[in-house]
Amino acid sequence: MVKVVVNGIGTIGKRVAEAVRKQEDMQLYGIADVSPSGQLKDELSEEGGLHGTPLYASNQDGLENLSDAGMHVEGLLEEEVDEIDVVVDCTPSGVDQMNKENLYEPNNIKAIFEGGADSEIAPVSFNADANYDEARGEDFVRVVSCNTTSLSRTMDAVESSFEIEKATANLVRRGGDIPQDSRGPINSTIPVTEVPSHHGPDVQEVMPDLDIKTLAVKVPTTYGHVHMVTAELESNPSEEDVKAAFREQPRVEVLSAGEGYDSTAKIHEKMRDLGRKRSDMQEAAVWEETITVEDGTLYWIHMVHQEAIVVPENIDAIRAMFETEDQETSIEMTNDSMGIE
Amino acid sequence: MVKVVVNGIGTIGKRVAEAVRKQEDMQLYGIADVSPSGQLKDELSEEGGLHGTPLYASNQDGLENLSDAGMHVEGLLEEEVDEIDVVVDCTPSGVDQMNKENLYEPNNIKAIFEGGADSEIAPVSFNADANYDEARGEDFVRVVSCNTTSLSRTMDAVESSFEIEKATANLVRRGGDIPQDSRGPINSTIPVTEVPSHHGPDVQEVMPDLDIKTLAVKVPTTYGHVHMVTAELESNPSEEDVKAAFREQPRVEVLSAGEGYDSTAKIHEKMRDLGRKRSDMQEAAVWEETITVEDGTLYWIHMVHQEAIVVPENIDAIRAMFETEDQETSIEMTNDSMGIE
Repeated sequence: MVKVVVNGIGTIGKRVAEAVRKQEDMQLYGIADVSPSGQLKDELSEEGGLHGTPLYASNQDGLENLSDAGMHVEGLLEEEVDEIDVVVDCTPSGVDQMNKENLYEPNNIKAIFEGGADSEIAPVSFNADANYDEARGEDFVRVVSCNTTSLSRTMDAVESSFEIEKATANLVRRGGDIPQDSRGPINSTIPVTEVPSHHGPDVQEVMPDLDIKTLAVKVPTTYGHVHMVTAELESNPSEEDVKAAFREQPRVEVLSAGEGYDSTAKIHEKMRDLGRKRSDMQEAAVWEETITVEDGTLYWIHMVHQEAIVVPENIDAIRAMFETEDQETSIEMTNDSMGIE
Repeated sequence: MVKVVVNGIGTIGKRVAEAVRKQEDMQLYGIADVSPSGQLKDELSEEGGLHGTPLYASNQDGLENLSDAGMHVEGLLEEEVDEIDVVVDCTPSGVDQMNKENLYEPNNIKAIFEGGADSEIAPVSFNADANYDEARGEDFVRVVSCNTTSLSRTMDAVESSFEIEKATANLVRRGGDIPQDSRGPINSTIPVTEVPSHHGPDVQEVMPDLDIKTLAVKVPTTYGHVHMVTAELESNPSEEDVKAAFREQPRVEVLSAGEGYDSTAKIHEKMRDLGRKRSDMQEAAVWEETITVEDGTLYWIHMVHQEAIVVPENIDAIRAMFETEDQETSIEMTNDSMGIE
C-alpha cells in the first residue's frame, strides 16, 4: 500500500484525494491545507467525499487557521514525513516549489506536482498514455495541465498509429470553472497574445519530438475547453482508421454530434445523466463528425473538462513512480475505479 | 450618379443603405421591404439614418403589410425598374434567388447579393482588396460573408507580399448579434462538425489559388468573430514585415493588446468611444502581439465585427460593376465616407 497525502484541497486536490481513496493499492494517509474553506469543510462533512480522512496543516499559520475555525487537525504535515510515501501537491503555483524545497526534498518524500507548476519543478512532465515509463522510479513528477493532457492523449493516439509531421492546435478556453463566477470574460473573446501559447511547449515536455504549435483564446463558458486541431501526417489513413485509433485510446471518447452531443453543454449534460460526481468527465471527447482527412492532413475538434481530466493521470503517476504496475495495468485499474470506460 | 435600391432592411441592408447615402457618386433611389418592422420604422423616423428615403414594397403582400401598418409606401419595387441602376439585395437566403429570377434578370437590373446566398447566384464572389477587377462590368456580384471578408483581406495582404503555401484558419464565432438574444449558445461551445467549415471554400471563391482550410466553433458572445490563423509561407519575412503588410491594407487595423485592446469587448468599447454609429467596426482587427513568424510559418489572431465588415465592400462592388472608379480610388472614397482610416 502506497501511503499518499494530498496537499491543497482545491479544484484538483479534492478530486485526486477522492480518487486515491478508490484505489485498492493506495491509502489516503491524509490531506493537508492551510485555510478552513467551505470546500474543505464540505469534503470532510458526513456527506463529503473525504469524510473521515485525517486533516493536517501544511504550516504553522495553517494549523492556527484551521484550529481557530473549529476544525479537527491532526497536526503539522511535516511531523508525518516518516509515515508518508508520496505527496500529491495541489497547492498554488509558487507554493508547490517552496514545499518541494522545504518539505519533500529534505525528507526524501516523493512528490507529484500539477500543470500550473513550472516544468523545471520535476525531471518528468507526465501523461499516462504518452510517457508512463519515463516516470518509473522518479522522486518528482509533474502531471501536465488539462489542455496539455488532452493534447498528449490525442496526439499520442495519432502519432503512434500514423506519425505526425507537424501539428497546430487552436484552443478555445473556458473563462472560469463553474464556481469561479467572478472571472471573465463576459460577452467577449480574449486572445492569448503570446504565440505559440504555453500549451504547445508544454506538450513537447511530454512528447519532445512532436512539432506542435498552439494558439489560444478565452471565451465566456464554464465547462470545457475546445481544441481545433490540424495534423500533417507521414501516412494517409482513412477517417475510419483515425476513429479506430482514438477509440482504442483508453481515455479518449469519440462522441457523435448527430446523436445529440453537439456541444460542450450537451456533453456536460451526458455526464450529469451518467451520474458522474460533479458531472466530471475524465476522458477527452473527440467529435466524431469533425475527424477529417484530406491529402494526409488530419483535422478534428475535441473538448476537455478542465477540472477532471488530469485526475486519473495523478493516480497513474503514483504507480509509475513506485514501479508497482506497468502502464497498461495501471491505466486499467484507474479507469475501472473511476468508471472510465 | 448610380441609382441604388437596397432591398431588405435588416442587419446588413440598413447599414448598406446608410453607406450609399454617404457616397457622392451614388443616389439612394429607395429602399424596399415587405414587413413593417420596428427596425424599418426606426430607420425612416426623423432620427433614423434613412429618414426621407422613398420606401417601396418588394411584392404585393408587402405592399399591403406596410400600408396596413400605416407606413407611407411609394408603390411596388417592380414598377420602378426603369429608374434603377442596381439593387443591393439584402433579403434572406432563398428570397434573393427568387428576386434575381423574377425581378432583376427579366428587367436587366444589376444586382449585388450577400454572403448568405449560394455562391452560384453570381459569377463573381467579391472582396474589394482581393479581386475588385473581376467584378468590372458584371451584372451580378456576390459580396462574401463577414468571416470570408476578413480572411480575404488578411490573406490578400499576406499572399501579395509573402506568398502563402498553405493556410488553416480556426474560427471562433459569436453566437448571435446584440439584438438576437434568443440565439445560443448559452455557456457552451459548439463545434461546426463539417470539416472544412464552409468558410474555407468561400474564401477560395475569392482567391481560387489559395490552399486554405477552416474549422469553426460557436461561443456565447455577441460582438465579433475571432480567427486563429496559421499560414505556411513561400518566403520567410520578419514579424515587422508582416505588421507593415497588414498596416498597408486599407481595411485591416493592427491593434495592440498591450495598449488596452486585449479582447473583442475592449475593441467594441473603442468603437463606442470613437462615436461610430452602432459601434460598428468595418475594419478587420489583427492583434499585433499575436503576429508571429517561425521557420516561414506565420501565425496571427484577428477579430471581425460580423454586422459591419461587409458594408464598404458593397459600396466598392457597385463602382466595380459600373466601372466608374478603379480599385484604389473606390476603396479610398468608401473609406473616407465612412470614417475608416
